[in-house]
Amino acid sequence: MAGRLYGIGLGPGDPELMSLKAVRLLRGVDVVAYPTARAGTGVSLGIIAAHLLETQELFPLVYPVTAGPGADASDYRDRINAFYDETSAAIAEFLEAGRDVAIPCVGDPFFYGSFMYWYGRLSGRFETVVVPGISSIVAGAIAAGQPLCFRTQTVTVIPGTLSEGEIMQRLNCADAAVIIKLGRTFAKVRSALERSDMLGRAIYVERASMETQKVLPAAEVETGTSPYFSMVVIPGGEID
Amino acid sequence: MAGRLYGIGLGPGDPELMSLKAVRLLRGVDVVAYPTARAGTGVSLGIIAAHLLETQELFPLVYPVTAGPGADASDYRDRINAFYDETSAAIAEFLEAGRDVAIPCVGDPFFYGSFMYWYGRLSGRFETVVVPGISSIVAGAIAAGQPLCFRTQTVTVIPGTLSEGEIMQRLNCADAAVIIKLGRTFAKVRSALERSDMLGRAIYVERASMETQKVLPAAEVETGTSPYFSMVVIPGGEID
Repeated sequence: MAGRLYGIGLGPGDPELMSLKAVRLLRGVDVVAYPTARAGTGVSLGIIAAHLLETQELFPLVYPVTAGPGADASDYRDRINAFYDETSAAIAEFLEAGRDVAIPCVGDPFFYGSFMYWYGRLSGRFETVVVPGISSIVAGAIAAGQPLCFRTQTVTVIPGTLSEGEIMQRLNCADAAVIIKLGRTFAKVRSALERSDMLGRAIYVERASMETQKVLPAAEVETGTSPYFSMVVIPGGEID
Repeated sequence: MAGRLYGIGLGPGDPELMSLKAVRLLRGVDVVAYPTARAGTGVSLGIIAAHLLETQELFPLVYPVTAGPGADASDYRDRINAFYDETSAAIAEFLEAGRDVAIPCVGDPFFYGSFMYWYGRLSGRFETVVVPGISSIVAGAIAAGQPLCFRTQTVTVIPGTLSEGEIMQRLNCADAAVIIKLGRTFAKVRSALERSDMLGRAIYVERASMETQKVLPAAEVETGTSPYFSMVVIPGGEID
């Protein structure tokens, strides 16, 4: 009988924000296949490390490239698709041998998570269980110290990888908003916030819930310094 | 020394989706003040019941009214504000007596959670710790069986209590969307989806992650039947 595939949401970074279910299911699998830039390291491995058993096999899913300013976009897509194909084949081998496999996912598996690409390739062939996780969005609002949205307000989550014009267009439709995937895009995001007259109430949050968490007004961030795990939170503000 | 106030996210309904931190902090307080429509019952009490200790005091925060079609809007706001004032005074008494108080919150405390109203009244006077929870939004996408958003897609969360025109306007700006707070508003939401040409890919999810979870195409829902804990998920769809 084939093994079962688990996509397990780990939450935003604090290992204690894992759910009881995530811990139980993680400890029940034979193989933990964790995404990373380098075998033996990485955020997801750091979160789960304390829960792993010695009998479990650790299988790193090592990204061949990380997106960067010099990368040619279509070449990057080709290489990353080949990576998902190859690692899916390796995971399928474990499953076909009857071994259960868990892929731990920082945040939530279906909310901008890489797990979606393995899910798309494997869930049709193998029984798959997906466990939700606390999204960095809600952890970011708590770090910012302000409720994100009240009553009839909408919340829009905007990837910072969109163009400045697209970001402004989305902000224009939004009550509360969170801009994610900052990285090298921060100068553009800051400009979009300023031109949308939202910079004053925007709060920059770096590594929400992690020990190295940092929070400051977005207007005070020196551009070009934000790491991957950072976001800008724009609370809706209390309405009556 | 005054006690500490905790706002504790419980997640979407499955008690096993509580975080390790939520369980630890909940069990450490003297008083658990739980919001409910009737003392001794309610969704939050059901989620935490298995974790409570006999030595803990249970203090129900009983809503005086629930929103309904016959309720006059301004009278409703007055009564609900008086309720938050009175219950905040009661919680402040526990805290002043040096007792720690936890308010358990279904979902996440700062994401459309009632906790925000106690937070607004008490966090300036008492040390307050807020613990994030898994939002029903991400649990809903997992129940729907489709990743919510890919790469550069935006996600918009829309309260179903907005007018049909406002819902259509927000859908028009959105890639992926989730419409929450359905209840009696479902016929209007369905019409907005139909007129926005999004009904075909909309998935109705009732009580995500709970034992009574129900999932079906939004087009097949008989109008007027949706309970409070229901939503419509509109996945962004995979993009290359």
